[in-house]
Amino acid sequence: MTEATVPDIVISRLPWYLQTLNQMAKEGLRTVSSKMLADRLGSTAAQIRKDLSYFGGFGKQGTGYSIYYLIEQLQKILNLDRIWQVAVVGAGNLGRALTHYQGFARRGIEIVLLFDNDPKAIGAKVGSVVVRHVDSLEAEIRQAGVKIAILTVPGAVAQQIADRLVKEGIVAILNYAPVTLMVPEHVHVQHIDPVLHLQRLMYYLEAN
Amino acid sequence: MTEATVPDIVISRLPWYLQTLNQMAKEGLRTVSSKMLADRLGSTAAQIRKDLSYFGGFGKQGTGYSIYYLIEQLQKILNLDRIWQVAVVGAGNLGRALTHYQGFARRGIEIVLLFDNDPKAIGAKVGSVVVRHVDSLEAEIRQAGVKIAILTVPGAVAQQIADRLVKEGIVAILNYAPVTLMVPEHVHVQHIDPVLHLQRLMYYLEAN
Repeated sequence: MTEATVPDIVISRLPWYLQTLNQMAKEGLRTVSSKMLADRLGSTAAQIRKDLSYFGGFGKQGTGYSIYYLIEQLQKILNLDRIWQVAVVGAGNLGRALTHYQGFARRGIEIVLLFDNDPKAIGAKVGSVVVRHVDSLEAEIRQAGVKIAILTVPGAVAQQIADRLVKEGIVAILNYAPVTLMVPEHVHVQHIDPVLHLQRLMYYLEAN
Repeated sequence: MTEATVPDIVISRLPWYLQTLNQMAKEGLRTVSSKMLADRLGSTAAQIRKDLSYFGGFGKQGTGYSIYYLIEQLQKILNLDRIWQVAVVGAGNLGRALTHYQGFARRGIEIVLLFDNDPKAIGAKVGSVVVRHVDSLEAEIRQAGVKIAILTVPGAVAQQIADRLVKEGIVAILNYAPVTLMVPEHVHVQHIDPVLHLQRLMYYLEAN
């Protein structure tokens, strides 16, 4: 219940912690200090301890964290202890690349629906997923009970598609379209725009 | 010079401000209050004023900001008042989608190099860019003087490719590979992993 008060910026760091812990476990490590984790992540030990403290203590002072226990707890906090079904809207290069992406299944994400409006694309198979017409979006989303969508449509139609998704019960959207979406408060959007990410990097470049 | 002390998290928000201001300008608006900007971005007026204060004041109290002036200043801060050439390593679905992406040219980003290790892909044209063999990466990057790279290679080879890029003068990497890269301090990395972004969203979902 206290979780409602965890700042979004803290939540955004948990998947990074989890990924790095999984990598450490693969390397055979069993325990980790917040300092070790911080070094891998370019963060600070204090930051990591503070972030984790929102969810209770996970280790004893001085002895570090059990990596497996910490992984298990983070998975529980992030609701990753189950499989999440996801719909992709937009079957262009990016939509198809995402639907093919091997890294999803390994981490509990299953793409079950893929939509497009191009008649030539409808019916084609991308991996094991058939491209469906976007006109059937409402019916399919509702029937499958999917709560998460990935948007890889052009910017001009993104808001309209988002509205339709939200109406059918989608509450989480990963948005690759180059627009800021307006959604009701109960819907969470993550925006991935390569341009915005590149622009942030350019700040650090010497203009010459 | 004071810019060296601006927190990275502040820098990360500037491209969002810029994008939203451009959208507002397109809608015909001439001035904007920090409150208006905050409402569009799901932020707060105080946050926006504080972020902008790192770079000096851009508006008079009570009258809001001139949108065009603010756009111009943000472009200067982010070094966007020129064209940046970018190399893409990995010509799979995602690498090709990015090379085709219309949103780059409009915003001062030009993909000039595209590499892959698949003999069948070498020599093919993606838009106006020819796929080159990754063996020629060093020579091509150095000759073109490119400073920014986008990595869309499998996780297993990402670190090795990053090392090679850094050796040739790359100082900014947009990393789509599902691994945390270790780079020298002068190199800036932005990691885009759809899984990490989805996992962050899943925190907000009711597990049922």
